[in-house]
Amino acid sequence: MGGMSFAPLQNNSFLRACLRQATDHTPIWLMRQAGRYLPEYRDTRARAGSFMGLATNTDYATEVTLQPLDRYPLDAAILFSDILTVPDAMGLGLSFAMGEGPKFEKVVRDDAAVQALAVPDMNKLRYVFDAVTSIRKALNGRVPLIGFSGSPWTLACYMVEGGGSDDYRLVKSLMYSRPDLMHRILQINADAVALYLNEQIRAGAQAVMVFDSWGGVLADGCFQEFSLAYTKRVLAQLLRTHEGVTIPRIVFTKGGGLWLPEMADLDCEVLGLDWTVHLGRARALVGDRMALQGNLDPNVLFAPPAQVQAEAIKLLDSFGAPHQGDGQGPSHIFNLGHGISQHTPPEHVQALVEAVHSHSRKMRGLPPA
Amino acid sequence: MGGMSFAPLQNNSFLRACLRQATDHTPIWLMRQAGRYLPEYRDTRARAGSFMGLATNTDYATEVTLQPLDRYPLDAAILFSDILTVPDAMGLGLSFAMGEGPKFEKVVRDDAAVQALAVPDMNKLRYVFDAVTSIRKALNGRVPLIGFSGSPWTLACYMVEGGGSDDYRLVKSLMYSRPDLMHRILQINADAVALYLNEQIRAGAQAVMVFDSWGGVLADGCFQEFSLAYTKRVLAQLLRTHEGVTIPRIVFTKGGGLWLPEMADLDCEVLGLDWTVHLGRARALVGDRMALQGNLDPNVLFAPPAQVQAEAIKLLDSFGAPHQGDGQGPSHIFNLGHGISQHTPPEHVQALVEAVHSHSRKMRGLPPA
Repeated sequence: MGGMSFAPLQNNSFLRACLRQATDHTPIWLMRQAGRYLPEYRDTRARAGSFMGLATNTDYATEVTLQPLDRYPLDAAILFSDILTVPDAMGLGLSFAMGEGPKFEKVVRDDAAVQALAVPDMNKLRYVFDAVTSIRKALNGRVPLIGFSGSPWTLACYMVEGGGSDDYRLVKSLMYSRPDLMHRILQINADAVALYLNEQIRAGAQAVMVFDSWGGVLADGCFQEFSLAYTKRVLAQLLRTHEGVTIPRIVFTKGGGLWLPEMADLDCEVLGLDWTVHLGRARALVGDRMALQGNLDPNVLFAPPAQVQAEAIKLLDSFGAPHQGDGQGPSHIFNLGHGISQHTPPEHVQALVEAVHSHSRKMRGLPPA
Repeated sequence: MGGMSFAPLQNNSFLRACLRQATDHTPIWLMRQAGRYLPEYRDTRARAGSFMGLATNTDYATEVTLQPLDRYPLDAAILFSDILTVPDAMGLGLSFAMGEGPKFEKVVRDDAAVQALAVPDMNKLRYVFDAVTSIRKALNGRVPLIGFSGSPWTLACYMVEGGGSDDYRLVKSLMYSRPDLMHRILQINADAVALYLNEQIRAGAQAVMVFDSWGGVLADGCFQEFSLAYTKRVLAQLLRTHEGVTIPRIVFTKGGGLWLPEMADLDCEVLGLDWTVHLGRARALVGDRMALQGNLDPNVLFAPPAQVQAEAIKLLDSFGAPHQGDGQGPSHIFNLGHGISQHTPPEHVQALVEAVHSHSRKMRGLPPA
């Protein structure tokens, strides 16, 4: 894959902020920014027939990834895909029924199923890497492209439960009853996720993010043993640079605010935070080591635009004075604390992006762009 | 209601631990200990016909409250009822369809509905106070009886959403769009909850607990403004003593671990914790002011009994050395970090209670009881 040439980057604010370098505004992108709240997304999905039909088709995946960028001056794009592509490639059979969450045809709940598990052939995920390259080309240097995967623990939740859960009973039963099996699953997941993200990087991803969506459901002690340890195993295997350029690594544990002091030791560039965390306190804890990404409650976007903007300003101010000048310093990437809701009015997103850009310039003493 | 006489208390370990006084073992009770995991509960519920049929009938409520005490040497009983009785008494029409969560017939989402809201006549909740007195009599001094209510914010979640939710979109939309309406709902809820808990105390409850089950879904800042402030408003109105005896007050915010430093300023005796919190760290933060209750992951109970016991011992040890001798000191009440699952094998609960009692005596240098 080496030697692909892509157009030079025109807006590097996101990548600079990841590396804790000064920017003239606080960059913003939104988790699940290409999604059902956009009518143009719903049109493409209808043409694709199904979610996996959409995600596995390079043209469709490229089209929907760029849709939010055509509406809003966002500072990064994120690959349109799902966090569960890796266990699908392991042969578990991922599907999405209309209006429901993900389902696996096969589940991993016993010795035999764990024995049968292996790091999948990355060729089975070729559709993802092709999408990355296609999107990177289509972006034509407008903004950087983020690749991603679910974390080893989060993948394991779905692999054991067979889908979403509100109590994580099956995966935790296995964890508490057969920690040996759980560790085996997590090792395989971690090694698979690392290979997968590295292939995304080689295909053109300029940053990668690990979504530990369900780390926060674990008990203290278990989080460290069954989630954080395997996130570390992923990070340790990731490419630090590609073709001479640093590839920032973002880790987001929803509900992980209590473990920030421990997450500060992760070997990554950015920590994602959900809305329960006070940005100023997080900055005081880890701001000298990592950039922080987040953390507006997605439900703020249901308030009228003026209130959306007021909440965005409050959040920027809670992070505090931006680092300016040369060298590295505390750095904030604006985002939601979780994926954007399908019920969000698209014009409220416009108000949010505008407020983040204009207020963050003002915080730096700069006039509106 | 004054002047009722009840049998003298034979096991005061729970009340002593609430007041941070030394005990010869760590007392244990379990949230939702009278519930569907017990076959005898399912029998009674079948006779009652519905959940509300069970909760509103004094004899049935008494019967199921005592069922877990007949199986296990638990150190406290908790009133069998629901956290949503107060909005039901406000006229919102609570029901439970078989196998589903609570539903309200009417919802509170606009000016008109908020204007129509008022603190309910406590006579509409007479069935609860009658159950408290009946249970207290039936306990005959075996262990103390805990009364409870949902927190103002948690009640508001259900009143606005009309039932459970996985994103709290409607209640948060109202909160971010019309904070004035939300504050009005919360004021009414707080005053109603205070009256309600005081009537439970007058009817015989020896401790009361506020379940802030959904406080943890709020953003930092919103938690303080929309949940904690109204929990304080409840606490400020509660009876401190009844007939000369102190009535401990327990506050439990699921997902509230990040806000422990702020919760330490609450005017209550006990803080409930979920499993994401490290007990030793919580003790260091607030142990000089409050007793701590919790916080085993209910899913531990799906592991084999030997592992259940090992996890219980680990948890007791994580709290650290018990306070002994006269005066007050750090104090732990063993509980789950959330209600017990309906799928729990009852014999695993036996193993848990035994391990907590025997290991906590050992920690005090005492022989098995």
